[in-house]
Amino acid sequence: MANEEKLNINDIAERAGVSIATVSRYLHGRLEKMSDKTANRIKQIIEETGYVPNASAVQLMTQRSGLIAIVAADVDDYFSTEFFKGASSILEAESYTGVLFDTNSSVKREASLLDRISQQNFDGVIMQPISADNEVLQKHIKKNLPVVLVDRETTGGDYDMVVTDNEQAAKRAAQHYRDQGFANVVVISEPIANVSTRTARWRGVQAVYPDAQMIEIAHAGIIGAEQVQAIISQLPTDAPTVVFFFKERLMLEILPHMIRENVLTAQLQVTGFSDTKLARDLNPNVKLIQQNPFLMGASAAELLLRRLDKKATKTQTEKIVIAATYE
Amino acid sequence: MANEEKLNINDIAERAGVSIATVSRYLHGRLEKMSDKTANRIKQIIEETGYVPNASAVQLMTQRSGLIAIVAADVDDYFSTEFFKGASSILEAESYTGVLFDTNSSVKREASLLDRISQQNFDGVIMQPISADNEVLQKHIKKNLPVVLVDRETTGGDYDMVVTDNEQAAKRAAQHYRDQGFANVVVISEPIANVSTRTARWRGVQAVYPDAQMIEIAHAGIIGAEQVQAIISQLPTDAPTVVFFFKERLMLEILPHMIRENVLTAQLQVTGFSDTKLARDLNPNVKLIQQNPFLMGASAAELLLRRLDKKATKTQTEKIVIAATYE
Repeated sequence: MANEEKLNINDIAERAGVSIATVSRYLHGRLEKMSDKTANRIKQIIEETGYVPNASAVQLMTQRSGLIAIVAADVDDYFSTEFFKGASSILEAESYTGVLFDTNSSVKREASLLDRISQQNFDGVIMQPISADNEVLQKHIKKNLPVVLVDRETTGGDYDMVVTDNEQAAKRAAQHYRDQGFANVVVISEPIANVSTRTARWRGVQAVYPDAQMIEIAHAGIIGAEQVQAIISQLPTDAPTVVFFFKERLMLEILPHMIRENVLTAQLQVTGFSDTKLARDLNPNVKLIQQNPFLMGASAAELLLRRLDKKATKTQTEKIVIAATYE
Repeated sequence: MANEEKLNINDIAERAGVSIATVSRYLHGRLEKMSDKTANRIKQIIEETGYVPNASAVQLMTQRSGLIAIVAADVDDYFSTEFFKGASSILEAESYTGVLFDTNSSVKREASLLDRISQQNFDGVIMQPISADNEVLQKHIKKNLPVVLVDRETTGGDYDMVVTDNEQAAKRAAQHYRDQGFANVVVISEPIANVSTRTARWRGVQAVYPDAQMIEIAHAGIIGAEQVQAIISQLPTDAPTVVFFFKERLMLEILPHMIRENVLTAQLQVTGFSDTKLARDLNPNVKLIQQNPFLMGASAAELLLRRLDKKATKTQTEKIVIAATYE
C-alpha cells in the first residue's frame, strides 16, 4: 500500500460502513456487541488496506502499551541480564514485553531515566535501584505506575521487593570456613556504603569473623595487573585465610592471577558470590554463593502482574526473599 | 497534588489564561511566538499544579517519543551490552534514550519484538539481526521507521549497517600462525550456517588454511565438563596446532580446562575473537582479535541520527566497517 501511513480509523470505519466506535471496539477485542459479519468485514478492510492502528491513539483509549520498563544497575553484569531474562519470560506469557534500561550505577542517570519512563506509556517498572531511599525514587516515578524493586533494599516502604538473603548467605559461607579452622577472612568488594546488598553481606561475614578485613575496589572491570599484584601480596600468609569476593566480576579479575601464580593452597582459599559458571571452570573445587537472578526477575514480574491486575485495590506491599545456594 | 493525574492541557490553558495552542507550543519548546511573560506564566502554572503532559497526547502532536529501540541477539553477551552502551552514549547527547530488547537468537522472537516496536512510538531501531534477509525484517518493521543494522550482514540492502571486518580479521590471525609454522587450525564455533559473521570468519581462516577443521557446538553456555574433555582429546598432537575460537564465551568455557590440564604448549596455542579482558587474564600471552562493540554501537547511533535528521530526503544506505585489532 503506497499510502497506508495516512489511513486513520475514520477511513476504516467509512470503508467498512460502520461507526468509529465499532472499529475501536474491534481493535480492542471487545467483540461482544458486534455480529460476526461486522467483525469479519472490519478484519477484511484492515487486511486489504494494511492499516496499522496508531499506537498513541490506541493508548489514549486503553492506557495500556504492553511495555514494562526493566531498569538494571549495569547491563554488563550477568545478574542484570539474567533478571531481565527471568522477568521477560513471565511477562511474555501475559503478552507484556520487557525492555531494558541501564542506569550504569549512576543516581543521576537513574533519575533521568525514570523521568523519561514516566512520560512514556510504560505499564510498569521492575528495577534494581541505585538510590537507597524510596522518597528519591518517588520524585521521579509517576504516581500509580506500579513498581517492583529487585536485588537492593531501599528505605521508605511503598514498593514490592524481591531480594536475596544476602546476610544469611554470607554468614553461612563464613561459618563454613570458621568450622574448618580458617583464622582470617579478607573481603574484596566494591565500596559498600549505601548499597544494601553489600552492607548485608558484610554484616553476615562480621557476625562470624568480627575482625574480618575489607579491601574496597572503586570499580570492577578496570583493575590493572599491578593493583592485582598489590592485593595478592597483602593477603595474610601466617594462618589459614579465605578471600571472600562480594562481586563476581572482581573474582574473575583476580582469581586467574592467583591460579597462574599458584598462590591458592589449603591455607589460602577463595569463595564469594558468583552467578555464572566461569569461576568454577577456573577452580573446580571452589564453593560459591549463587543467587538466582532469573528466578528473582520472574518473581518480580509476578508481583508486578498482580499489581497490574488489581491496580484499584490498595494492598500492602510484599517482600519476597529468594534464598541463595552455597555449594 | 492529590488530583494531578486528572489535569489536562485544557486546565493549564484555562489557569494560565491562554489558548490550548499556546500551551502546546510551550510544551514543544516553540517559544518564538510567545512573550517571556506568557512563557513564565505557563511555566509557573505547570510547576504549581505538578502537571505532567500526557505522553500519548504529546506524541500525537510531535510524532516523537525520544525512545530508540536497540535490539540485541543475546543480552548475556558482552558484545550486545557494549554496543548498547556505545549507542546510548551518542543517543543521549541528542536527548534520545536507548532501550534494549533481547531476541535471544530466535527468529520468531525477533519478528514479534519488531511487531511490537512498530506498534509503539519508537523513533528508530538499531539491531543485531537474526534473520539474514532484509525482506523478512521488512515484514515486521513499520515503513519509514529508520533502522540501522549492527554486527551481522543481511541480504537485500535498504538498511544502514555497521560491521566488523570479520573475514580480514580472521585471515590476519590465521596468517600469523602460518608464518610461525603452525600446521593445523581447529576452529571452535557455534553453528555457522546463515550467520554472516561466522561464515566470514570461516572464509578468512580457510583462505590461509584450506584444510582447517571445524568443531561446531550447538550453544555456548551449556557445555559440560565431559564435552570439553572430548573436545580437548580430539585436538591433533602430531604437529603445531592453533585452536581458533569464533565466540568468546566458548573460549571462556574451554580455556580454563586447557590451562588446568596443562595442555597449552608451544605446539598447542589458542586464539580467537574476544572482547573482554577475561581471556587475557587467564592466559597473558594469548593473541586475540578484539572487535570494538562500543564504537560499533556509537557509529550505528550516528547513522541513525542522520536518518532522523533528514527523514524526508531519500539517500543511499551506508555501510561502515570497523576494523578489529589483533594483539
